[in-house]
Amino acid sequence: MNELQTLTSYIEEQVSGHAFPATPAQLYDPLRYFMTLGGKRMRPVLTIIGGQLFGVSKEESIHAALAIEFFHNFSLIHDDIMDAAPVRRGKPTVHTKWNPNIAILSGDVLFTEAYKQLAHYKDDRLSELLTRFNETATGVCEGQQMDMDFETMSTVSKEQYIEMIRLKTSVLVGCAFEFGAILGRADVGTRRLVYNFGVELGIAFQIQDDILDLYADPEKFGKQVGGDMLSNKKTLLLLTAMELAQEKGDQRVDQLLSMSDPAEKVAAAQALFHELNATEATRLIQDAHYRKALQSLEAIPIENSRKEPLRRLAEFLMNREL
Amino acid sequence: MNELQTLTSYIEEQVSGHAFPATPAQLYDPLRYFMTLGGKRMRPVLTIIGGQLFGVSKEESIHAALAIEFFHNFSLIHDDIMDAAPVRRGKPTVHTKWNPNIAILSGDVLFTEAYKQLAHYKDDRLSELLTRFNETATGVCEGQQMDMDFETMSTVSKEQYIEMIRLKTSVLVGCAFEFGAILGRADVGTRRLVYNFGVELGIAFQIQDDILDLYADPEKFGKQVGGDMLSNKKTLLLLTAMELAQEKGDQRVDQLLSMSDPAEKVAAAQALFHELNATEATRLIQDAHYRKALQSLEAIPIENSRKEPLRRLAEFLMNREL
Repeated sequence: MNELQTLTSYIEEQVSGHAFPATPAQLYDPLRYFMTLGGKRMRPVLTIIGGQLFGVSKEESIHAALAIEFFHNFSLIHDDIMDAAPVRRGKPTVHTKWNPNIAILSGDVLFTEAYKQLAHYKDDRLSELLTRFNETATGVCEGQQMDMDFETMSTVSKEQYIEMIRLKTSVLVGCAFEFGAILGRADVGTRRLVYNFGVELGIAFQIQDDILDLYADPEKFGKQVGGDMLSNKKTLLLLTAMELAQEKGDQRVDQLLSMSDPAEKVAAAQALFHELNATEATRLIQDAHYRKALQSLEAIPIENSRKEPLRRLAEFLMNREL
Repeated sequence: MNELQTLTSYIEEQVSGHAFPATPAQLYDPLRYFMTLGGKRMRPVLTIIGGQLFGVSKEESIHAALAIEFFHNFSLIHDDIMDAAPVRRGKPTVHTKWNPNIAILSGDVLFTEAYKQLAHYKDDRLSELLTRFNETATGVCEGQQMDMDFETMSTVSKEQYIEMIRLKTSVLVGCAFEFGAILGRADVGTRRLVYNFGVELGIAFQIQDDILDLYADPEKFGKQVGGDMLSNKKTLLLLTAMELAQEKGDQRVDQLLSMSDPAEKVAAAQALFHELNATEATRLIQDAHYRKALQSLEAIPIENSRKEPLRRLAEFLMNREL
């Protein structure tokens, strides 16, 4: 874990050392605030590790890593408006601390800041970086739209859900890692394996997030345990439970959705999903994606021992409690 | 005018022929709607003319032209949310016809679409295009923030106002024109002249917009005449009137700001600004920027006769009634 921590600290330094312009203050103060709220910095770390795998120093890949991190935070600022989320990482969201207009515009300028980081690469790699980044950004927007659409749809299939999280979350993880490979001028086939590792890891990570949302230790979890359940969010866990209940003609999941007492509702969901085997079934889907990620990793044509940091990162992400 | 009309039709075809993805419909339907509401397409036309000036065919510069037009429309969609504007070009704005969340996200994906157009250029020009575009996008965001800041500031100087419209409107006009020069691999000094022509023309254009807002023929104007005045918007016209009134100890501009009957307020502003000489003084500032634009144009080191379409375009933009 030590190397990961070192890289995370390096990213943290670079993020907090990034000088946004002083004025207009209402435009840039929200970015100074939001960019230092923390987060795991998993994506930019993946860019750096990806670069190192293909002989690129962290100093060379830092701009691509920052592009990913700025884009990720831009999308969080805008998503928080759309989701009317009051809190992010235990602190007020930008639209709450300032107002929605400022959150829209600060987000927009942060999106531009991401592209400015890419523009540091002035050679033949720029075209590849830009093309992959554009595709990714489009995917993230499409995923967020699907997520919003799901709120008003009566049924969502598990396949639709996985496609939504692939776009909303995982393509950016894939892009982050592939940026390292693009900078290292890896061939197209290798780049595809690298991308797939990131995407499948991202899907597994997001499914785990859904499970943690309901089963996390309240002492360690930064937000309300069961928040997804309280808003009847159609996570893979709930969708799996619905499917399993329907097969048995069990009405209890439907009843769960209309429960009003928050503590009772969360406790009932924890017990019922476990009893229906939905939690275990969801974990199996998570695990299948995790294994796909590892298969892509094994197939990357570089010396086996050099993949060790990635195995450790993947393992770390899959065994976290938060 | 014939050549301008031909180019405008070409842009119109390319814009309406651009196939946004079918799904998610809630994400892309607003773009299909908004991109066909019309508009003068002045900016993309300028890119094409700029390209032609430096030997680039319209087929080669069309992607840069579309990048400009998509970005412009993205900024309008987001500005309309921030300004709570119900109508754009005589039709409901995206956030009104759909909702603010959809307007945020559709805008975001349109911003990405602009960068996708740039990514069509895969050679050494990409870096220059991207760098200029990023700077421009940042400037437009900063200008919009300044515009919002002005609403709550008690005093705004004419210099601050000009700086705001330079960023909010004019740098994009400069960028549009310079894109043609970048594609034609013009040298840095020439590019600077080209850019300045666009920026100064954009400032003159915006000042004229402020004047037209108060003095347009209601029959021809697509929106309410005097809309800026009714919201006490600090346009150059109002700022100039305030300054001239203050010099004379005249209280009537202050009184104007608190008038409640819309028709009376607009009529009173029209008469008072005229009497104070504010309208004429504002026109002189407009004209000074127009002349600066023409000076930059004359200095561009290409054969004089080839600049004719630009002189005609500039003249057309300065003599419009709408």
